[in-house]
Amino acid sequence: MLTTTAADPTEQASRVTVLGLGDMGSAIAKTFIDRGHRTTVWNRTVSKALPMVDSGATAAASAAEAAAASPLVVVCLLDGAAVDEVLASVDAAVAGKVLVNLTSSSPHQARANDRWARERGATYLDGKIMGDPADVGTPQVMLSFSGSRKAIDVHGSTLGELGTVTYHGEEAGLAAIEFMAQVAMGYEILIGFLHTLRLVQAEGVDVAEFAERAASSVAALPPLLTSIGNAVKAGEYPPDLGPLNVQAALMDDMISHRESIGVEAVRMREVRDLMNRRIADGFGAQGFSSLFELLTKP
Amino acid sequence: MLTTTAADPTEQASRVTVLGLGDMGSAIAKTFIDRGHRTTVWNRTVSKALPMVDSGATAAASAAEAAAASPLVVVCLLDGAAVDEVLASVDAAVAGKVLVNLTSSSPHQARANDRWARERGATYLDGKIMGDPADVGTPQVMLSFSGSRKAIDVHGSTLGELGTVTYHGEEAGLAAIEFMAQVAMGYEILIGFLHTLRLVQAEGVDVAEFAERAASSVAALPPLLTSIGNAVKAGEYPPDLGPLNVQAALMDDMISHRESIGVEAVRMREVRDLMNRRIADGFGAQGFSSLFELLTKP
Ligand SMILES: NC(=O)c1ccc[n+]([C@@H]2O[C@H](COP(=O)([O-])OP(=O)(O)OC[C@H]3O[C@@H](n4cnc5c(N)ncnc54)[C@H](OP(=O)(O)O)[C@@H]3O)[C@@H](O)[C@H]2O)c1
Ligand SMILES: NC(=O)c1ccc[n+]([C@@H]2O[C@H](COP(=O)([O-])OP(=O)(O)OC[C@H]3O[C@@H](n4cnc5c(N)ncnc54)[C@H](OP(=O)(O)O)[C@@H]3O)[C@@H](O)[C@H]2O)c1
Repeated sequence: MLTTTAADPTEQASRVTVLGLGDMGSAIAKTFIDRGHRTTVWNRTVSKALPMVDSGATAAASAAEAAAASPLVVVCLLDGAAVDEVLASVDAAVAGKVLVNLTSSSPHQARANDRWARERGATYLDGKIMGDPADVGTPQVMLSFSGSRKAIDVHGSTLGELGTVTYHGEEAGLAAIEFMAQVAMGYEILIGFLHTLRLVQAEGVDVAEFAERAASSVAALPPLLTSIGNAVKAGEYPPDLGPLNVQAALMDDMISHRESIGVEAVRMREVRDLMNRRIADGFGAQGFSSLFELLTKP
Repeated sequence: MLTTTAADPTEQASRVTVLGLGDMGSAIAKTFIDRGHRTTVWNRTVSKALPMVDSGATAAASAAEAAAASPLVVVCLLDGAAVDEVLASVDAAVAGKVLVNLTSSSPHQARANDRWARERGATYLDGKIMGDPADVGTPQVMLSFSGSRKAIDVHGSTLGELGTVTYHGEEAGLAAIEFMAQVAMGYEILIGFLHTLRLVQAEGVDVAEFAERAASSVAALPPLLTSIGNAVKAGEYPPDLGPLNVQAALMDDMISHRESIGVEAVRMREVRDLMNRRIADGFGAQGFSSLFELLTKP
């Protein structure tokens, strides 16, 4: 559909542009430079390009000029709004390029970027990074991609120098969906954990010692998550964690305990209400996973 | 302080009473019977005692009569309210006994039970069970105890026949605190997970396959939980998960994505608001764990 190759693919593959030199963009650019790619960089605040130039990169005067310099253009900015702004300034300079967005942004934006790129004769790959800038260039950093399969075929090995690459499919939004889901789940766990640390602290328990014990409990959870996933997919709900009738009885005790020590109980109230609705509907013998049935009908 | 021994401690230790024969109480009674204890049982609904009698237990006509029959009296009822009701009917019959409450109820109730038992010349142990009734009698079932150390010394091996025993200390509420904290954290994770399954389902992703990937991510979390526990204890907050400035930028994208597909965003909004407050206070370079500072001041 689009031409992303050129006279000498080897030479082409070795030229890379990085737009955005924050913590993550700089780690990416530095990795490309260190691996011998001819790297062109651009950043809104010019000073951040200097260490890259010292390391061997070429600094471009504008995002458009930087994009024009390489067949592979990697964008890593703060958020979706920053990407919109920078891409608007690049505009036609993206023609014939493979544009890779590594900014953490939504599936919606991935699809919009994909359309934007096609309209300008470019090929789009959306990528999402999980990991620390300090670990870029090691397999610990996870990169999920979706969008043009041809682009991942041609540039997958270059992108793979940044970390462990997974490709989710041609639909540009897929990597962002996975990212949003995984990251949201991580935040759910961590904010729940912080509230729980607050609970144990309020009760005079050592938070660091509790955290160790909580970490062991969490380490034992994966099989339950897998079985809940299967239950939800099948729409058949065994009494996981005991029947709802028994679990619901515990919720009021938990909520009043939390309230008595000033710890929030938003989620416990939600869980109790869902359990009560499910029991009222006649499903008190089913397990926790059956609450899923109610999440679609508020 | 209290006398819990009698003429023949061996003979005494082998007599056990179980009050409450729901799924869990029955599993407990059955285990004691199978291990050769002379077991007396009582349940509000008489019919549930019949299978226990068939297995070799003695059924008592009232909870008080059952309590009078053994030096060790184990209570496992639906919830705190049920325990209050049954203990009121037992009253003075508990004198000289070791009363063990294995009902999932609050630290507050554990302390109240402890006082109630002392007032009647009994010794109290509060216990909390994590595990499946089918696994009672195996090490997979975890039992946490707090309260009389003497009682755990004398009866720990009998109680240990039910599962793996941990003793948290003399303060009667400790086992319930640990239980409330661990269980709450489990529910936080699981309800967050269900909402995430809803998200991926709304986006057309296979929920069971996503659950497998989520399970792997969760398996990698324990070291982060431990380090967050240490950060909270020390009150020093490294940029875990990146600086708040960068994390906060992601939240709006996540929230609007969830809203656009009809998935709730209660926690994401809370996390965003906490991050924004922390950034406004000048701590944008710190990490996620620093949000803990705000949980005490709403
Ligand atoms: N840091 C992490 O731990 C981490 C981990 C995984 C994923 N990520 C993701 O990687 C991306 C970049 O993060 P980061 O850590 O590099 O953030 P950062 O250090 O805050 O850098 C932000 C970058 O975005 C640029 N920018 C912001 N608004 C802009 C605008 N309107 N126009 C042009 N440029 C703009 C900044 O330019 P100036 O220098 O001119 O401000 C800077 O280059 C984010 O999507 C983040 O979620 C980060
Ligand atoms: N099931 C599990 O998977 C599981 C796992 C860990 C912990 N636990 C805990 O174990 C405890 C018992 O659970 P379970 O599964 O055995 O529950 P269950 O099967 O629903 O049995 C409830 C028991 O409580 C009795 N009861 C309820 N209200 C009463 C009242 N007002 N007066 C007298 N008796 C009353 C019931 O008597 P009737 O027969 O007369 O109704 C029955 O014996 C709960 O605290 C639960 O949280 C259960």
